[in-house]
Amino acid sequence: MDLTGKITMAHGSGGRATNELIQKVFAHAFDNPVLDAMEDAAVVQGCEKIAVTTDSFVVDPIEFPGGDIGRLAVCGTVNDLLMRGATPKYLTCGCILQEGLEIATLERVVASLADAAREAGVQIVAGDTKVVGGAGGLMINTAGVGFVDSSLQISASNCQPGDVLIASGHLGDHHATILSKRMGIENTIKSDLAPLGDMVQRLLQEGIQVHCLRDITRGGLGTVVKELAEASNVTMALQESQLPVAAQVRDFCGLMGLDPLYMGNEGKLLAVVAAKDASRALELIKQSTYGADAAIIGQVTDEQAGMAYVETAIGGKRMLDILFGEGLPRIC
Amino acid sequence: MDLTGKITMAHGSGGRATNELIQKVFAHAFDNPVLDAMEDAAVVQGCEKIAVTTDSFVVDPIEFPGGDIGRLAVCGTVNDLLMRGATPKYLTCGCILQEGLEIATLERVVASLADAAREAGVQIVAGDTKVVGGAGGLMINTAGVGFVDSSLQISASNCQPGDVLIASGHLGDHHATILSKRMGIENTIKSDLAPLGDMVQRLLQEGIQVHCLRDITRGGLGTVVKELAEASNVTMALQESQLPVAAQVRDFCGLMGLDPLYMGNEGKLLAVVAAKDASRALELIKQSTYGADAAIIGQVTDEQAGMAYVETAIGGKRMLDILFGEGLPRIC
Repeated sequence: MDLTGKITMAHGSGGRATNELIQKVFAHAFDNPVLDAMEDAAVVQGCEKIAVTTDSFVVDPIEFPGGDIGRLAVCGTVNDLLMRGATPKYLTCGCILQEGLEIATLERVVASLADAAREAGVQIVAGDTKVVGGAGGLMINTAGVGFVDSSLQISASNCQPGDVLIASGHLGDHHATILSKRMGIENTIKSDLAPLGDMVQRLLQEGIQVHCLRDITRGGLGTVVKELAEASNVTMALQESQLPVAAQVRDFCGLMGLDPLYMGNEGKLLAVVAAKDASRALELIKQSTYGADAAIIGQVTDEQAGMAYVETAIGGKRMLDILFGEGLPRIC
Repeated sequence: MDLTGKITMAHGSGGRATNELIQKVFAHAFDNPVLDAMEDAAVVQGCEKIAVTTDSFVVDPIEFPGGDIGRLAVCGTVNDLLMRGATPKYLTCGCILQEGLEIATLERVVASLADAAREAGVQIVAGDTKVVGGAGGLMINTAGVGFVDSSLQISASNCQPGDVLIASGHLGDHHATILSKRMGIENTIKSDLAPLGDMVQRLLQEGIQVHCLRDITRGGLGTVVKELAEASNVTMALQESQLPVAAQVRDFCGLMGLDPLYMGNEGKLLAVVAAKDASRALELIKQSTYGADAAIIGQVTDEQAGMAYVETAIGGKRMLDILFGEGLPRIC
């Protein structure tokens, strides 16, 4: 069978056509002995404590400035593991292909996924492919397993009054990219999609007292701080003037009536660190591959359990709540 | 928000509507402290060697006689772990909901998934929910982590000449069920969908020399034996007269021109065991919850590397190959 053209239902049969697709597209790109064994389950090295997470990715368009659904499927899951202080080790990759998907597109996405996995230092140890009807789309689920250093206490419920909040860079880039592409708006905004292992590992290796880490994805920073305020029974206080937003994204948001506080990223995190370590933590994040635009954006207080607000430039307080309703187009 | 009616795009926003859906439908059904923590990744107990696998489920219809996509999403992944001799421990669950899905349907499926997880002895430790456009459908990805006893050597490449092949029950039930439902054919065929932990653990605990285990899913037994023959460089020889097929499924296949050897199950396995242990292994499988109809169906020989055949009732040999092409409707 010549592997050109489009995906057909036969590629999902579980028989020879599926095997050829897996061999020629996936196994080739993900090349590693564990996956090559093609067993029902991969057997790999374990660890006393492990972190486990999963994410499905349904972004449309599947390719966009700064990345694609393949890189997204790695970064999203790897970053979730990192947010628990875990070292990402293994990924599974379940692809749901829609009939009519161009095989050339699939190959680009899979190559990008494999590149991102190499960058993030994770091995893809198990995969699955299904084909469904539709209009040539592609959805990817990844699950991740990481090793956990039991001495770390990094958790959504561990934010403490006095802690300092650091955002690792510009807010809203990924969201603005997808929205621009969906609406056919021409600009040079690019997704910030990135694996954050380098950033997190610098903080942990240098012994920064990290109380909580969250990647700033669906729902945006506003949703993240409100959720953490509720989980830790504290107040999260942001300073509007300190929020890092790229000029072009700020203009785009102004034009569209959007709030960067509720726009998702895919390569940014919020670090909640002990006040004594704040400036050193900021410095370490700034030195990391994707942290050049990091900033201290607020602090944890004991004003009221579960409250989150942003102090505006003119000194007012705007309460923040979890995003309700539509959001915007699906961005991940 | 009242959780009745249908799924809307807002349920996929990542904000309050998503949270309510997760709390009221998923967290409630999957109730466990690890998941309740709602962290980016679950931290759980590990083991020196772990098995990792994943599967996406796109079966249509999502509810069918003998089960539904929720039970399927647990059994499919749990059985893949068991096929490596691993003890299934943790599942992740990624749901992709199509707009318009009835919330009552989702609740039934999720309850069924939770029941199957309890039966299989696994904990659902991480989840994700996305909403996409469509016609009210539902796709589920599960990834599984199991603990591995390093002393076991159970692998597709470990089938040895002289070994005996045991099928754990009737072939084709699940496939015939889905096909009947799709074609609107009235009959009483039911899916065999089941977790096989009890069966596998009996074999291992009793010290049966198990060389290979495979669940008989997409592609059917014909595909399984051909793949194992190739992986182990042996011949797999089946006896047609010994193949267990329920009368009603045999009639259905005859009518439709289908071959039970290429029809998938979701609660059956092929065990390849040392000849000396064959009758004891058969007895143990027959005693297990889902093994009453098990049968010895053939043996491994050294005739030719990579060959698989079925000896017909009149003494002919019919070569078996991996299923090529369409298969049939998607069954998992």
